[in-house]
Amino acid sequence: MAQQHHEMTGTKTATGTGIGTGAGTGVGAAGDALTAYLQDQATDFLRSLRLHRESTTDAQGAEESLEAACALRRAARRIGATLHTFRPLLDPDWASSLRAELAWLSGTLAQEHAYATRLDRLSTALHRLSGPPQLPPPTTPVETTSEPAVAAAGVTAVGRRSARRNGWAQPPVPGTENGGTTPRGLAVGAAKAAALLERQLTLAKTRAHSTTLQAFGSSRFHAVADNVAVLASEVPLRDAARDDLQALAEQARTTLTEAVTALPLGQAGHPYNAGALSHGLAPTDTAPDAQDAPWLKVRSLLRLHRYAQEVLGHPHAEPRIADASHALNVHREAAAAAAAAAHAARTPRIAPATAYALGVLHADQRHEVEAARFAFHQAWLREEARTW
Amino acid sequence: MAQQHHEMTGTKTATGTGIGTGAGTGVGAAGDALTAYLQDQATDFLRSLRLHRESTTDAQGAEESLEAACALRRAARRIGATLHTFRPLLDPDWASSLRAELAWLSGTLAQEHAYATRLDRLSTALHRLSGPPQLPPPTTPVETTSEPAVAAAGVTAVGRRSARRNGWAQPPVPGTENGGTTPRGLAVGAAKAAALLERQLTLAKTRAHSTTLQAFGSSRFHAVADNVAVLASEVPLRDAARDDLQALAEQARTTLTEAVTALPLGQAGHPYNAGALSHGLAPTDTAPDAQDAPWLKVRSLLRLHRYAQEVLGHPHAEPRIADASHALNVHREAAAAAAAAAHAARTPRIAPATAYALGVLHADQRHEVEAARFAFHQAWLREEARTW
Repeated sequence: MAQQHHEMTGTKTATGTGIGTGAGTGVGAAGDALTAYLQDQATDFLRSLRLHRESTTDAQGAEESLEAACALRRAARRIGATLHTFRPLLDPDWASSLRAELAWLSGTLAQEHAYATRLDRLSTALHRLSGPPQLPPPTTPVETTSEPAVAAAGVTAVGRRSARRNGWAQPPVPGTENGGTTPRGLAVGAAKAAALLERQLTLAKTRAHSTTLQAFGSSRFHAVADNVAVLASEVPLRDAARDDLQALAEQARTTLTEAVTALPLGQAGHPYNAGALSHGLAPTDTAPDAQDAPWLKVRSLLRLHRYAQEVLGHPHAEPRIADASHALNVHREAAAAAAAAAHAARTPRIAPATAYALGVLHADQRHEVEAARFAFHQAWLREEARTW
Repeated sequence: MAQQHHEMTGTKTATGTGIGTGAGTGVGAAGDALTAYLQDQATDFLRSLRLHRESTTDAQGAEESLEAACALRRAARRIGATLHTFRPLLDPDWASSLRAELAWLSGTLAQEHAYATRLDRLSTALHRLSGPPQLPPPTTPVETTSEPAVAAAGVTAVGRRSARRNGWAQPPVPGTENGGTTPRGLAVGAAKAAALLERQLTLAKTRAHSTTLQAFGSSRFHAVADNVAVLASEVPLRDAARDDLQALAEQARTTLTEAVTALPLGQAGHPYNAGALSHGLAPTDTAPDAQDAPWLKVRSLLRLHRYAQEVLGHPHAEPRIADASHALNVHREAAAAAAAAAHAARTPRIAPATAYALGVLHADQRHEVEAARFAFHQAWLREEARTW
């Protein structure tokens, strides 16, 4: 069976190189933990793949299909990260090659979900910026929230992501009591911006869906799946001591801490430093990318560290890691949403009011980027003394 | 002399009502302090007025004229506030009437300066958002500041107001290395937005200058000046004990603390709460006004408290008052700047890129409003336990 897969995929494996193939072949405790983890994840991958196939042939299975794709990506990320961190304990070339293919796969699968999330984030933000479509006459804007004031006061912008999303069927009804001077044009702009973003991101999502379907049908995908099927039954291990596993996990931690040290944490910890929006109107749009890159890198390294801890068997040892990861996920989503707003503003022939609303939205999302950096800073420093 | 002024202005005074007229007439220590303060301020008012007249007849005196107008407003604010806070110790009708006229005067004089400040604030913000027109090749954007990195990291958006303002003669040079995909349109939008704001605010400033000149030449102004001249020589006091003065100052403090208690400080103290921008695209533009109003009210009450403490002879007893006042001055300026950006976006036939830049600018300034609330919160709570 394994041999058959190797022939199908053409991927170089440990077979015949004198390297052991997993638990029970005498590679020690390190090999046991690594093998068990990779086999678990490979099994999850294959189960998700089966669920995904079943759901896509079922007309009612859209939701299940998305869930299965999500679980598939989850397992793919963990396998890929583990192949990277513990590569010296595996066949290095085989690990690198499979990791690259898993990255391609999870990257491809992530697109559809990312566009949906982005649209949801931008619609929620536009609703927050536009206020409720109709204000109840007797209350002031401050009193329109139904939550207790203290609870509402503690809600951060980052925490607002769960806000209920209302439909954007038509523009909010302009106040009639103030007809002569109300900036209706700008309010209509918010509705038009919402419609434009919905159109652009829905189109992008539809295209991503097609790309995903094509990917699932490709020989490249089948090769990845075959490789993962091999992994589920045999892990191509070199001899490894428990110490090696810990040393490699420690190396992942060191790489992470070094990258965190390189972040502008002094600035991030100072609220309202206006750093994330600086150069937001610069002539090139590489400015936000350049300042976001080190944060996105830390996000990736946080994942490698987190999955390495899972391999070692203590996945929740550091609560701050979860908070820090969440903050950097928000960072990534807000940065992408801000870019989508800026991109939409470059659509030819849009009304100035639409462009204005997109500008406000862009700045709002860049401030969420800044807020996410602040949240990361808080999470990171909170437990530094305690945990590390 | 005093009688002549009363006839000229027609303002009701204490003359003939059996009320004492200041120091040396036996109204006690309270009267002494109040009289001395009002006379000092009235003298400052008259001196500034003389300097202003001299500088406006001098062709080189534009700078001196502005400084004199500033000093005139400073004295007018203090006289008006004192008349309000200590009204029970004075002839109440006379105090109310003169206070209203002083408010008209200082409000009128403030306009020209306010438009200049607003334009400066918006130009500085646009420069920050656009980045430097030309990046020096070897340095990264982070390194372009000449300040030490740590100091720069600690600089808040609020503190950036002193940033050097560059000329806006032409749009920034778009990067040529990336010609196909650079959002040049948006960068040109920043330059066009700057030009539009410069045009609109310079026009407003010019009009305000004319209004100021008209005000200085009006009989209404002469009436105010005559009343202040009376004040410089005789203060229409009722009998008052030192206790009364302190009780009235205490009342100003109580009014202030009550208004502060009514502020959403819980929200303001939570960084990145996104409160100031909420409803920023609402169909009516009363939304920011409604949420700004309590802060502007506290700003006024802070002034009344501050000037009452000056009357009592301890102007710098509470350092936090200066910080809190500064934060609310920034709040007011940023809110006005955000409104000016929104107003400019309603100019007919502007390009979408211009509107986009104005949207980013509006949101940026609303975030400075939020930052100012946070700064107020920090200043206020810092010394609460220590001082009060």
